[in-house]
Amino acid sequence: MIDLHTVPTPNGHKISIALEELGLEYNVIPYDISKGDQFKPELLALNPNNKLPVIVDHDPISGGPEPMVVFETGAILLYLAEKTGKLISKDASIRFQQIQWLMFQVASVGPLQGQAHHFIRYARVQQDYARERYVNESLRQCRVLETQLQDQDYLAGDYSIADIACWPWLRALPLIDIHLDKDFPNLYAWFQRIDARPAVQRGKDLIHGWVYQLPPNFKMELDEKTWSYSFGEEQYRKR
Amino acid sequence: MIDLHTVPTPNGHKISIALEELGLEYNVIPYDISKGDQFKPELLALNPNNKLPVIVDHDPISGGPEPMVVFETGAILLYLAEKTGKLISKDASIRFQQIQWLMFQVASVGPLQGQAHHFIRYARVQQDYARERYVNESLRQCRVLETQLQDQDYLAGDYSIADIACWPWLRALPLIDIHLDKDFPNLYAWFQRIDARPAVQRGKDLIHGWVYQLPPNFKMELDEKTWSYSFGEEQYRKR
Repeated sequence: MIDLHTVPTPNGHKISIALEELGLEYNVIPYDISKGDQFKPELLALNPNNKLPVIVDHDPISGGPEPMVVFETGAILLYLAEKTGKLISKDASIRFQQIQWLMFQVASVGPLQGQAHHFIRYARVQQDYARERYVNESLRQCRVLETQLQDQDYLAGDYSIADIACWPWLRALPLIDIHLDKDFPNLYAWFQRIDARPAVQRGKDLIHGWVYQLPPNFKMELDEKTWSYSFGEEQYRKR
Repeated sequence: MIDLHTVPTPNGHKISIALEELGLEYNVIPYDISKGDQFKPELLALNPNNKLPVIVDHDPISGGPEPMVVFETGAILLYLAEKTGKLISKDASIRFQQIQWLMFQVASVGPLQGQAHHFIRYARVQQDYARERYVNESLRQCRVLETQLQDQDYLAGDYSIADIACWPWLRALPLIDIHLDKDFPNLYAWFQRIDARPAVQRGKDLIHGWVYQLPPNFKMELDEKTWSYSFGEEQYRKR
């Protein structure tokens, strides 16, 4: 059994989708980051970086008696793929292509599209330069993916953890007013192909992702405490 | 033989340090990003994301006749560790701790400290909110690493690709006026421990990293073309 400590964000949904695809049994432990759950000592003991999701595998691949704790979604996806031998190629040349596209998501799509979401939806000071910078970067990333998908159905080889890593972030693009159906036909077809998978349907709203129903460029009005936990003093204070 | 397509940046130095540590033979192909070399068709054929470094291994782990191309530093480090069986643990429970700290670097330290560098050293519009946001995040990451290193010499188990991934980025912190020796004793001791390694000395200035000698908060005066390649129209235009 795997404990999944998680939140209804693109990063959380990567892992619930992967667990559903793999048919692994798991137990969901939800966190409310608007209440500062991410700073609870129980979570800090699992992940000193206070980010979610985190998994605790009670039947770990190490074979040892101790459960294995893994944080960072890129590491969790590699762990689940290794545990099951699925969602990653056995051919090394394809496997490393999948790993490099996983890394493209982890190093660029997530952190930099995340900044676009921040400046459009959360920042309390209007910052046109930053907003434009990250929307431009998000569009550039879409063009890179569009090119990669021009002659193939998935990012590298068969459907893999690379596709699963990217999909929940691309799902969030309408919130920053980027629409795949209008400008990125290959990427949109890929998006629909993955969305049609029953496991993705189950995993994508494991904890309800209400945020995805908001209109483009919707500014979130967070109360002081919630803002502080995510972007202010509580987020950045010494612990 | 490995071809290393690279630049004198923290991401470039991760790979030259790893290659030096592993004693692998490699051939350096330097790029000048101030001249837009990153958009040359030869590089785009290797990496459609036009980022460096990229490796081409002519003696690939696939065993096939085709060279293997790997981009994204996280993927390259995992590739080199798998190729040699070094710089990563054979014990799965330690190995995944190393992978998760590698991912912490790839997903947070690199992209978000990179934003601090951007707003301090390159942005042409003063953006106090963005600058403060990314400096605060960089400090928070240092505290996470400081805690992780309180009882151990390396981030997880022995010296590994996780340490190698982080080191060149922490080397750049003085440029954004963060000084490990003043505020982060464990992290500073770790930094010095790694800096003392002969392979690190060779790899860290493979292509001369003159930028590391600049004073804190030094604002770069880039000409129009160079700025455009990195941050403006040339960077974000459709290709």
